[in-house]
Amino acid sequence: MLQNIRVVLVNTSHPGNIGGAARAMKNMGLSRLVLVDPQDFPSHEAVARASGASDILETAQVVGTLEEALVGCTLVLGTSARDRRLPWPLIDPRECGTMACADAGAGAEVALVFGREYAGLTNEELQRCHFHVHIPSDPAFSSLNLAAAVQVLSYEVRMAWLAAEGQRPKVVKEEVGSERSSQPSTTDEMELFYGHLNATLVEIGFLDPENPRHLMSRLRRLFGRSAVSRTEMNILRGILTETQKAARGLAYKRKSAPEEK
Amino acid sequence: MLQNIRVVLVNTSHPGNIGGAARAMKNMGLSRLVLVDPQDFPSHEAVARASGASDILETAQVVGTLEEALVGCTLVLGTSARDRRLPWPLIDPRECGTMACADAGAGAEVALVFGREYAGLTNEELQRCHFHVHIPSDPAFSSLNLAAAVQVLSYEVRMAWLAAEGQRPKVVKEEVGSERSSQPSTTDEMELFYGHLNATLVEIGFLDPENPRHLMSRLRRLFGRSAVSRTEMNILRGILTETQKAARGLAYKRKSAPEEK
Repeated sequence: MLQNIRVVLVNTSHPGNIGGAARAMKNMGLSRLVLVDPQDFPSHEAVARASGASDILETAQVVGTLEEALVGCTLVLGTSARDRRLPWPLIDPRECGTMACADAGAGAEVALVFGREYAGLTNEELQRCHFHVHIPSDPAFSSLNLAAAVQVLSYEVRMAWLAAEGQRPKVVKEEVGSERSSQPSTTDEMELFYGHLNATLVEIGFLDPENPRHLMSRLRRLFGRSAVSRTEMNILRGILTETQKAARGLAYKRKSAPEEK
Repeated sequence: MLQNIRVVLVNTSHPGNIGGAARAMKNMGLSRLVLVDPQDFPSHEAVARASGASDILETAQVVGTLEEALVGCTLVLGTSARDRRLPWPLIDPRECGTMACADAGAGAEVALVFGREYAGLTNEELQRCHFHVHIPSDPAFSSLNLAAAVQVLSYEVRMAWLAAEGQRPKVVKEEVGSERSSQPSTTDEMELFYGHLNATLVEIGFLDPENPRHLMSRLRRLFGRSAVSRTEMNILRGILTETQKAARGLAYKRKSAPEEK
């Protein structure tokens, strides 16, 4: 179950932090590390700080973009400082652990995403996350070391996992994962949907591509928290396709077409 | 209240870990560090890893024995691997946080004690502790980095402190419910939306009113679980209105209209 949870580090500067994160993960029983565009990797410093967790560094996946790192994921939890301009569903590390374990236990792929040492995640990256996790630090000194942040979230995942071991009602598993059609859409499927939605909104004149404001991010937030199933995704994509046809004057001719033509 | 809680590091080898511990403490609002016979302190490496928490290093108390470090304390919580020959009351980090905050809140002096990087606390030192705290690591790779262990316990102290302050649940509330626009739509607003959605889907030819099957009930299920806010509702209703206009050939004329007209 813990193997369904990946830790994603975005654009890390210091290899020591990658090693420290690997050690924290392994201590807590996590094993899948994904590095998005690390500045210095592989590195001796990472191995030194990993202190026995170098197997996690060796099997780490290195990718170029966050999008690649999230392929297959249906739950993406990104660490964030609290004061973002963008309002987003915000949870604490304990809720993060519970949520990650519940989904991973039902067979879903989950990502815990950590940003750059000094700048965190960009707003664009944060919008790819379903929930933002805020580690409740002292506002006067709020920035945790990267490996320390990985330690806190990994710890909460393990606490939730230990609590769920033996306690987890089997019914929940069956309910959530019984048929493929009721499984949540993956991150990449959601991205295709957002692309289609964006194009359609431009086409019907609702979205001005030169002045998009916060429209798409608001819609991402709405659909992002809904765990859209595959069946529902098929319906949403179908609606978009028909909307585009209608906007192009190719609407399906119904027996009782409205007066307005 | 948090100032009644001291962190005691016993015979630490690596100054980097002292710095990392100071940073973890300050992030979580703790300020009192006591060093028992540190091997290398003060040190530039400690200051570098403290990364802004060097005030904690400067005010750290350096003593020769654990006994001196614990003067005045009525509750001493010592980190320990689980498999000790010595049977002792064993708690997890969460219980440690709750216990430390309860006593500190009542005015008592509390110590969180951490042992050497490789050997931990001796049996004699462990016997000076009222409780042993075990961080639930993977038995196959159980030894946490010292600063990481300080991070976990400090985090649990802060979580307990925030809960005691009655502050913790605020985080989520503030984000989700601060303004009227982020309040969820009412049942009647949702019904108006479903009516509008139904009409629009018929108009674009996606929904056959004579054979509606489960389409609307599936969409009700999707939006029903999303707690659609008022702002989001305005967006969704706006999209439907524009879709209807587009389907009626009244689409807003964009500079770059699609080829299909």
